[in-house]
Amino acid sequence: MEELIQKASLLKNLTSELGALSTTDKNEALLLIADELENEIEFVLEENKSDVLKGEEKGLSPSLIDRLTLTESRIKDMAQALRLLVELKDPIKEVISETTRPNGLILKKIRVPLGVIGMIYEARPNVTIDAASLCLKTGNAVLLRGSSSALHSNKALVSVIHKALGKSNIPKDAVQLLEDTSRDTAEKMFTLNDYLDVLIPRGGASLIQTVVEKSSVPVLETGVGNCHIYIDDSADKQMAIDITVNAKTQRPSVCNAAETVLIHEKWAVEHFKELVEKLAEKGVELRGDQRALQLDNRLVAASEEDWDTEHLDLILSIKVVSSIEEAMEHIQIYGTKHSEAIISETKDNVEKFFTYVDAAALYHNASTRFTDGFEFGFGAEIGISTQKLHARGPMGLEAMTSTKYIILGTGQIRS
Amino acid sequence: MEELIQKASLLKNLTSELGALSTTDKNEALLLIADELENEIEFVLEENKSDVLKGEEKGLSPSLIDRLTLTESRIKDMAQALRLLVELKDPIKEVISETTRPNGLILKKIRVPLGVIGMIYEARPNVTIDAASLCLKTGNAVLLRGSSSALHSNKALVSVIHKALGKSNIPKDAVQLLEDTSRDTAEKMFTLNDYLDVLIPRGGASLIQTVVEKSSVPVLETGVGNCHIYIDDSADKQMAIDITVNAKTQRPSVCNAAETVLIHEKWAVEHFKELVEKLAEKGVELRGDQRALQLDNRLVAASEEDWDTEHLDLILSIKVVSSIEEAMEHIQIYGTKHSEAIISETKDNVEKFFTYVDAAALYHNASTRFTDGFEFGFGAEIGISTQKLHARGPMGLEAMTSTKYIILGTGQIRS
Repeated sequence: MEELIQKASLLKNLTSELGALSTTDKNEALLLIADELENEIEFVLEENKSDVLKGEEKGLSPSLIDRLTLTESRIKDMAQALRLLVELKDPIKEVISETTRPNGLILKKIRVPLGVIGMIYEARPNVTIDAASLCLKTGNAVLLRGSSSALHSNKALVSVIHKALGKSNIPKDAVQLLEDTSRDTAEKMFTLNDYLDVLIPRGGASLIQTVVEKSSVPVLETGVGNCHIYIDDSADKQMAIDITVNAKTQRPSVCNAAETVLIHEKWAVEHFKELVEKLAEKGVELRGDQRALQLDNRLVAASEEDWDTEHLDLILSIKVVSSIEEAMEHIQIYGTKHSEAIISETKDNVEKFFTYVDAAALYHNASTRFTDGFEFGFGAEIGISTQKLHARGPMGLEAMTSTKYIILGTGQIRS
Repeated sequence: MEELIQKASLLKNLTSELGALSTTDKNEALLLIADELENEIEFVLEENKSDVLKGEEKGLSPSLIDRLTLTESRIKDMAQALRLLVELKDPIKEVISETTRPNGLILKKIRVPLGVIGMIYEARPNVTIDAASLCLKTGNAVLLRGSSSALHSNKALVSVIHKALGKSNIPKDAVQLLEDTSRDTAEKMFTLNDYLDVLIPRGGASLIQTVVEKSSVPVLETGVGNCHIYIDDSADKQMAIDITVNAKTQRPSVCNAAETVLIHEKWAVEHFKELVEKLAEKGVELRGDQRALQLDNRLVAASEEDWDTEHLDLILSIKVVSSIEEAMEHIQIYGTKHSEAIISETKDNVEKFFTYVDAAALYHNASTRFTDGFEFGFGAEIGISTQKLHARGPMGLEAMTSTKYIILGTGQIRS
């Protein structure tokens, strides 16, 4: 607790100074971190190794071990990402609008940092660098609370950041890592409204759920994606198959991968077997509703839970529907408002889908896998918002800002 | 509880339909409500009278009774506000940005309603009409939870709305009033994440605090304002006096009224007595720090609590400071990030104030009383946000919207 308050108040006291920094100073600091990371590859790998060994002893799954593991090339990628971030436009101090009121007051809306950002994340050391660099570029102070399984790696990375910031014009205390990774301390962050302006949880559904439920600090909810593809009766056969296979198999472990395909009965009658064939070739386990089961015996019955689950694995649920309305109703019930696609050649149906489906990203004739800050051209990403306030969809630099009004008067008073 | 879930799910089921409504249909509905309000003045006044009588019996303070009371002219003002709202631009379906990615994907960001908005407010029946009309204009469904002290008035107003909507193309269920005004039911709204997209509390500090602390539904925090005026050494004497008197006395009961004046010692030496004179003439009770007390014996000593309190009354705390830095530090400690003003003729100091003071609205040579949706030219206001996420400062129609991305492809898959 003492560490938490001490670090949080250190950060809070830096917010005005950070908000006033020039773009040049911030970019220089990012480049210094990139260089320092490359200089310290051996040290970081050494520290990471002790986390990985401990993780293996504890029996973490291969995919968790993979996310935890740093390599020389992964560290070089981090440094490269930092250099790319330098190229991006600094949103801070941007004048978003300027109006003159009838009484002569000049009203400017300008972009400012959020203040102190709390990041709570699982055992992925790359998030340490991602979050710290996005926060520095936007003049935010950041309190990092990573997983205990990645503590050595995170401490090494933050020490690299501090070393680099020491050579820059940015106060090195702007990035703080909690070394106390107890659950209790994390939960105390949830109500630290006097110090934290926002909490961003990154990780699995249960972590995010806990933060949303328990936090009085405003939360930017990220990333659970139960994404659907609806294949309309008019869908081009090859396009529908290619997109479905891509959305399910290109990287099944991520939130913008598809979990369920809804197929119009007319399309299903003609092309179901070919779709199933291609998916089976890629090793996808297929689960279907009653109508889908009748069309191909390679499917097993889908349970109610399947429709509701982000498998993040090579498992796909298939439902045959009688109309686009039935598909949209299914999406409304089971979707998580992340990414939804329609494959269709019927303009009216595409319009209907875009109007009535409620999600951060809606696709026509494209894979859901594109919901991503880099693919959207933001150059960087702190996560994908599935809530409706503040930011929706991939969150880049702009999502890490707030605004303030500057009002210039000449003695105006209100009558 | 049953009423709550029944009404909340009714609203949730209407969200796609409301989001798709045309501006014409929405404006027509607003005009019908305006007409119906004027037709039903007698009925509404009758119902309001029973709330007022009950309030007087319960011993509500005169200012609360005033806020609760409707009059013919107040109802006509509501109708007029509805007609003005019709003139404002409908933000829904606006294309905010459109880009084409290197792979040919066309990415559009469009404005959509938030969904279902929960309003929790105190005994001010005008909020019923304000909230319902702003929500209707932006295609949002709204669940109103007013005070039990205003229940008859609110029921009457919502029945007027329903009657008008019955003649329009907007589903009349889009506006729902909770008749169960128990605290228990209000608290259940706080965790109704499956139905509510946002909660907006409007009222006193303790109501807002409770909602922020207990709600897992995202909150738009409104309105506590402990606003300061800093009079710099170079401030024009008359301007500083006029602005201070205006910011304190023009309407002391509102959140953008000033609560504390910070005066540079050089200005104080010359003009303190004259400022105090003018404030005393207006009946302002003056409380001061040690240095202020020495300058004029009409002041009483300010307590620590005074610096920290939104009095909403004719009470003003005065502190003499040695520098702009001391003033800014005071504001950082006690301010609520609402509205802060500097009166100065020194450009560098104004720049410093704008850069380092963290608040929704910063004024140079103008009264803090201008922080208001109408004064800012938004035409309407659901409240003044003092948080940093989503919306900051006066919230008009745009603050009641979210966005979604529409992505148009020609078969793109991710490699």
